[in-house]
Amino acid sequence: MTTTQLIEQIHQKKSFLCIGLDVDLTKIPPHLIASDDPIFEFNKAIIDATHDLCVSYKPNTAFYEAYGLKGWQSLQKTIQYINENYPEMFTIADAKRGDIGNTSTMYAKAFLEDLDFDSVTVAPYMGKDSVEPFLAFENKHTILLALTSNEGAFDFQTKRSEGKELYRHVIETSKTWKNSQNLMYVVGATKAEYFTEIRKIIPDSFLLVPGVGAQGGSLQEVCKYGINANVGLLINSSRGIIYASNGADFAEKAREEALKMQEEMKEILKTN
Amino acid sequence: MTTTQLIEQIHQKKSFLCIGLDVDLTKIPPHLIASDDPIFEFNKAIIDATHDLCVSYKPNTAFYEAYGLKGWQSLQKTIQYINENYPEMFTIADAKRGDIGNTSTMYAKAFLEDLDFDSVTVAPYMGKDSVEPFLAFENKHTILLALTSNEGAFDFQTKRSEGKELYRHVIETSKTWKNSQNLMYVVGATKAEYFTEIRKIIPDSFLLVPGVGAQGGSLQEVCKYGINANVGLLINSSRGIIYASNGADFAEKAREEALKMQEEMKEILKTN
Repeated sequence: MTTTQLIEQIHQKKSFLCIGLDVDLTKIPPHLIASDDPIFEFNKAIIDATHDLCVSYKPNTAFYEAYGLKGWQSLQKTIQYINENYPEMFTIADAKRGDIGNTSTMYAKAFLEDLDFDSVTVAPYMGKDSVEPFLAFENKHTILLALTSNEGAFDFQTKRSEGKELYRHVIETSKTWKNSQNLMYVVGATKAEYFTEIRKIIPDSFLLVPGVGAQGGSLQEVCKYGINANVGLLINSSRGIIYASNGADFAEKAREEALKMQEEMKEILKTN
Repeated sequence: MTTTQLIEQIHQKKSFLCIGLDVDLTKIPPHLIASDDPIFEFNKAIIDATHDLCVSYKPNTAFYEAYGLKGWQSLQKTIQYINENYPEMFTIADAKRGDIGNTSTMYAKAFLEDLDFDSVTVAPYMGKDSVEPFLAFENKHTILLALTSNEGAFDFQTKRSEGKELYRHVIETSKTWKNSQNLMYVVGATKAEYFTEIRKIIPDSFLLVPGVGAQGGSLQEVCKYGINANVGLLINSSRGIIYASNGADFAEKAREEALKMQEEMKEILKTN
């Protein structure tokens, strides 16, 4: 998917919501557990109930790998289901991968080619040759961890060298890499005050923003400092939406939560 | 496996060799391709031919994920085969994972519990709460990326703040984390001169050392600066051993290459 197509979707749906499909078998409705593939059945119901309210789905690979072969199969079925039924969706494999060159190429093929996600999240620690292999795929996107939403973000990401924090070095340096037009960045909502500085370096890039809701970040604050002329934001919510209920009404309740966020986004888009 | 058991193995086998099982279907002997699971058949033959010369096997997960469901199955079969037939082996899932707390727990369970590896490699960018979940498993080990063997290592890992490079911050800070006794570190052989500094911070820790051979690092140099009283080194070789031949004699040739390294290691152990 091209960035232009993503922007079109955002304006059409009046939403820049990304729903995180982080499925934990201990948290899903008990009546699903008996089915042949509870994770996929759960995702399918959530997707069918929310697809008109969001522009993106983001399965975190950890939740699938934790169930081994069966989990990997659920991931495969989920992305296939989205690509076949809702091809307008911007899909994100939240995998946080990164390795030396030829190994990163293997990861890139796994997620961007075989599973056919539109994008994959990548960790920057190993530098240029660990990220560029992901950037080589046309109309695919690499979402680089910059400033994450967790407490540990302050352990290393904000260490200052040569007058700026590590996350700023990551963003600035990444702009010089080959095919850097395919980059997006992860910036946590829990650090809204940082968006102003980040927008100075990458005014046009899309930012994937976790941490709204459960982790305490505010949608209004993030938009105040982070929105750009093309919106340029994908706001992720996982637990707050998908676990709104663990009864038979889970999909309906997930829709209600997604709708609340979409309505708030619609208002924000009116004034931007 | 406990660290003491690993040290015993090293002395018994007179080897601190780790063999990287990075299986690329385009590089393995053509006669294997027709088999039902070529990756597993390849690994099995390599393992049977080399198990007395090395103390560790390290499949890099990228090479398995690249083949989707079938690849994941090959990984599962490989680790099962090692655990059943050579339980003395120190097994490493080279996965370079790392995510927010509850998500890292899912990864840790996947590799340390379900697949039952002895250890997993983890990226430090997201800080304490992304690594500690891996450290919570008793007699399991977390191998943290410190200074990697690739060119991109110099993009961020050597940035100096508060008088020291990022990789030193990573090592020093990680020592303060809960269950830090379960930590080992990745330090690339291509940067042998750094081992002296690193040994000042972590004199006793095990270091997993990629980059000897194909990437240009020298075993002698690494040992000169990196070895400690308990050896404290696992030297990885992947391509140099497993792709020594792609004919019918591939396992035999792999053994020859592994033997060369083991003999060199035996000599080094005599004088240390």
